[in-house]
Amino acid sequence: MANKPIIEPRILKGFRDTLPQSAIVRTKMINILQDVFAAHGFTPIDTPALEYTETLMGKGSDETDKQMFRFMDNGERDVALRFDLTVPFARYAAMYIDSFGTPFKRYHIGLAWRGEKPQRGRYREFHQCDIDTIGTRSIYADAEILAVIGKALKALDINYRFKINDRNLMNALLAKLQVSDKKTAVLRAIDKKDKLGEDVVRTELVKEAGLSEAIVAEIFSFLALSNKDNKASEGLARVRQYFNGDEAAKKSLAELECVFAYLNNNNISEERYGFDLSITRGLDYYTGLVFETIFLALPEYGSIASGGRYDNLATLYTKRELPGVGGSIGLERILGGFEELLRIEKRISPAQVFVTMIDNNDLDYLLKVANLLRASGVYTEISLETGKLGNQFKYAEKKGIDLVIIAGDAEKLAQTVNLKQLSSGEQQSAIALADLVNIVKSK
Amino acid sequence: MANKPIIEPRILKGFRDTLPQSAIVRTKMINILQDVFAAHGFTPIDTPALEYTETLMGKGSDETDKQMFRFMDNGERDVALRFDLTVPFARYAAMYIDSFGTPFKRYHIGLAWRGEKPQRGRYREFHQCDIDTIGTRSIYADAEILAVIGKALKALDINYRFKINDRNLMNALLAKLQVSDKKTAVLRAIDKKDKLGEDVVRTELVKEAGLSEAIVAEIFSFLALSNKDNKASEGLARVRQYFNGDEAAKKSLAELECVFAYLNNNNISEERYGFDLSITRGLDYYTGLVFETIFLALPEYGSIASGGRYDNLATLYTKRELPGVGGSIGLERILGGFEELLRIEKRISPAQVFVTMIDNNDLDYLLKVANLLRASGVYTEISLETGKLGNQFKYAEKKGIDLVIIAGDAEKLAQTVNLKQLSSGEQQSAIALADLVNIVKSK
Repeated sequence: MANKPIIEPRILKGFRDTLPQSAIVRTKMINILQDVFAAHGFTPIDTPALEYTETLMGKGSDETDKQMFRFMDNGERDVALRFDLTVPFARYAAMYIDSFGTPFKRYHIGLAWRGEKPQRGRYREFHQCDIDTIGTRSIYADAEILAVIGKALKALDINYRFKINDRNLMNALLAKLQVSDKKTAVLRAIDKKDKLGEDVVRTELVKEAGLSEAIVAEIFSFLALSNKDNKASEGLARVRQYFNGDEAAKKSLAELECVFAYLNNNNISEERYGFDLSITRGLDYYTGLVFETIFLALPEYGSIASGGRYDNLATLYTKRELPGVGGSIGLERILGGFEELLRIEKRISPAQVFVTMIDNNDLDYLLKVANLLRASGVYTEISLETGKLGNQFKYAEKKGIDLVIIAGDAEKLAQTVNLKQLSSGEQQSAIALADLVNIVKSK
Repeated sequence: MANKPIIEPRILKGFRDTLPQSAIVRTKMINILQDVFAAHGFTPIDTPALEYTETLMGKGSDETDKQMFRFMDNGERDVALRFDLTVPFARYAAMYIDSFGTPFKRYHIGLAWRGEKPQRGRYREFHQCDIDTIGTRSIYADAEILAVIGKALKALDINYRFKINDRNLMNALLAKLQVSDKKTAVLRAIDKKDKLGEDVVRTELVKEAGLSEAIVAEIFSFLALSNKDNKASEGLARVRQYFNGDEAAKKSLAELECVFAYLNNNNISEERYGFDLSITRGLDYYTGLVFETIFLALPEYGSIASGGRYDNLATLYTKRELPGVGGSIGLERILGGFEELLRIEKRISPAQVFVTMIDNNDLDYLLKVANLLRASGVYTEISLETGKLGNQFKYAEKKGIDLVIIAGDAEKLAQTVNLKQLSSGEQQSAIALADLVNIVKSK
């Protein structure tokens, strides 16, 4: 082996290695999400990375079809790596829903692959995090998805705000204006309002959708009744007044009221959500509630959690009707945001404390100290080697561990330790073991 | 979309969907492992699923080369899915070790893919869980890997026993017998002892390795000095006596003593490990300590955690010498074992409590109750629909949730709930909210 030529160690374009500092944060984030989801009765599931191309092809857009990592396997099967978690979930639901029963609530955190043009923040391999409730039309399912995502973002210590809408309100408006046939064009155009500006969208609605100037003006004054920055309850009242008992709008308005109350009852108050008629989520797929989420510390960053209600998840695989509601949390985007906000510490070890070793005759005592800390949830690394203390401090510093413990024969005899904080240089001597955990936790 | 023909929902041969009951257990297992690893200063890392074939090819066996999922991507790059986590780690270490510093301690839990012939318990996509310390020759690194794996298995509630050896003891024996040139053949033959029986191995050593009957007899009487069922310290004493001060064996014996002491100092007592000279771990790769692990409830199940020390991790990618020690925990095998031992509950929801809903006017109160339980770490699902209580009980039962809460207007007024255990039919009425968490936790 040693005589073989050295192969250049490199990775594929558009792919990434996860270095310790990112991996530590991502692992923690995923653990927090898993815990919040499970606490609300959402079960984890998983599906294979590789599926028959037939199962995946034509279920996303033409773009995702082109971007698929697709090949013939050794058994001459036409296979591809999944490009999202939604299509595999539709296939999965079609296969097992009868044995699970409905409603079925699941989350799925996993990798997906797309041969996209690599660009800043976009990779060919990325994590997705989806949460859905299927097999029910209950509005409480919609409300719960929002509540769970809100609690998850709070648990991640993210200052967020939802933008919530029901697509059927726009449908009701278009019916009222007798231009229901333009529904798709209008929803798509409005979806681009934030990106392209109001003027571009007005022109598109007149020139391409063929709407009159008057109708377009009415649509825009309708949109102005609500916006993300106003109180959701006030926007709702204005829209209710606008529709003045219109039957088509009634159900949606009642449901939105229900959703807002559900959020309030989960300690998600009105600062955390806005009612915004211009949220449409471009996809034809959605049929009711839709939402996006602003990362308030990075408002220009794009939505960090989006989703909505759909009529039927798995049409392509089963005749069984599976209405549902779901959302996707942008794990990678949030991680990128944390990096931008410098919320990721540069660290190579997840440990908070490093136990140095002066003399390996004291190792039994040092292990006792380390295990004491670990038993209290303090991640603790212990030196693998004796050697100059200065070098051991340097090692801890390089790994990002700020607290070091020093103990030799005298401390072993006295059952104490010395604790040093590397960043400040502060040292506390002769700490009794009974006090150690509290002192460490206070740092 | 609705008029398209229905596609048969199916998955590829050798692949699996993870159903809720397995996903709940696997998620929990992985969380436990992550926590134990991090508590000892091992950092998570990740590498791409897809790499240049050149990076992966020829680094495993001819068999793994043949089993690789290999193809040309859209950019005409020859790529393959990783078949283990060791080869990518070697590539990774070569790229980043200078910035991390040594020793570097990492774990990696991730998927790997092999186009193996599907057979019971073997899949084409599987999780691996590796833990390694590289860049040090310290015997404490070896000891720590064993201690961490022991603690991890304990945390998984597995009754286990290590079989530990140092390959250099066999080398010392062969040197003493002046047949050092037969080293590889002897190690490989002995590795098969448990599988094929002693007689087959004796014959192989005489016929294929060309050893004399007397030498083979000596090897077997040496092996008999230790075995997994004896006390490790006694085996060590016998081997020390056998070598009688032999320089070549001295270091290994001292190191094994060190490892055993380290385990004892981590509350891993002698019942948990045996010294077993016949453990060699077939691979040429290992150069010192080697170990395997028995699942005591399923002793015929094969090792559930194995590994050892190696001289150089990344020869193929860097001239830098990277000695290390590592182990691999057989996640899939353990999960299979749990299934065989019926330790996996049939459940579709991770929730422990289901809150029923009689009247949606009480939803605010029901959410208060649910959030109270969740805040105390009790996973709680709340009904999405009103409707017959009997149907709501059936739903909870189908999802594997045994405790249900019933509360209507009267309970809301009194701030109490009724709790029913579905399996026993027992019901406790008018529980004050202040007592609820404790009562639920006692069930």
